[in-house]
Amino acid sequence: MAVIEPIARMVAELSHLPGIGQKTAQRLAYHIVSMPLDEVRSLATALWQGRKAIRFCAVCGNYTDGEKCDICADPARENGQICVVRDPRDVAAMERMHDYHGRYHVLHGTLSPMDGVGPDDIHIRELIARLSTEQVQEVILATNPDIEGEATATYIARLIKPLGVKVTRIAHGVPVGSDLEYTDEVTLSKALEGRREM
Amino acid sequence: MAVIEPIARMVAELSHLPGIGQKTAQRLAYHIVSMPLDEVRSLATALWQGRKAIRFCAVCGNYTDGEKCDICADPARENGQICVVRDPRDVAAMERMHDYHGRYHVLHGTLSPMDGVGPDDIHIRELIARLSTEQVQEVILATNPDIEGEATATYIARLIKPLGVKVTRIAHGVPVGSDLEYTDEVTLSKALEGRREM
Repeated sequence: MAVIEPIARMVAELSHLPGIGQKTAQRLAYHIVSMPLDEVRSLATALWQGRKAIRFCAVCGNYTDGEKCDICADPARENGQICVVRDPRDVAAMERMHDYHGRYHVLHGTLSPMDGVGPDDIHIRELIARLSTEQVQEVILATNPDIEGEATATYIARLIKPLGVKVTRIAHGVPVGSDLEYTDEVTLSKALEGRREM
Repeated sequence: MAVIEPIARMVAELSHLPGIGQKTAQRLAYHIVSMPLDEVRSLATALWQGRKAIRFCAVCGNYTDGEKCDICADPARENGQICVVRDPRDVAAMERMHDYHGRYHVLHGTLSPMDGVGPDDIHIRELIARLSTEQVQEVILATNPDIEGEATATYIARLIKPLGVKVTRIAHGVPVGSDLEYTDEVTLSKALEGRREM
């Protein structure tokens, strides 16, 4: 006798989630089955209604449940800076820092010719359009420090510079709290290159 | 700007699940938001409809989506053996082994005076009732080898023995594939006590 169908379906659905294997999915499914009905209803509703409510901000492409995201709707965030990131969870990461007070632009991807992702497949055109409609003094490129992220940053910098807008890239270097001994050579080399006078 | 409400609610609900902390819940929520609508619908439906469909088998207390569970509904499993376990996931564990061909009885808990769980709070009475309505030759006590599990097994054994039904307890010993060096003393002592002639 195998697991009964409703539980098997829960396991199958849960194991599609990232970082959730067969064993974890099974543990979660059995837990959910033992939860009171109204708690499961509220979990399922949060997932489904939440997903349905999410749209992309018409301005920056961040997640929102309205027309514009909270950041684009806030006039105080209009300080002439646009921080360009790969996806909405990078916006969340930047916001957790509480040190950036400008707006964002979400690319929804990075250039990756190997995977067939070209400039037209991510929201670069929308970024360029914003430069003519908004008062932008600086575009901060905060794509990931990997090959695709670097390529994307370089590509966008080349497009924007001729428009007379300042373009910057977030610093690469040794992460705070890390150990030089265990830092890879490329990061160390970037840290040396980006050294500042004290 | 904090995380928007629909995502915050997803995170809150997901982080109630066992083994899912704030960080994992956030990662899952952002993943779910990026999933196609119909996949999220099918996930939410599997959880909610699945939970709604689950009942307890009228005979053994195992999870089922019908009146009786598949095992109690299968005449081939009526071999005079009843294996007593704490909860339905233990039935699933026993079934994965494919070596047991009898039926089960799910207690839905173990005796735990410290937590105020007494004999009337778990399905012991139902087990005794089955002994008079079914042809039972052997009751196998497969509660966990911990204090509560042992106490529960001892309690049930004392109730059943006078009824003339054979009562057995699953063996305690050194797990297959483990290392004697790292086996705790109680387990080793149980393994020695339960030794068999070869």
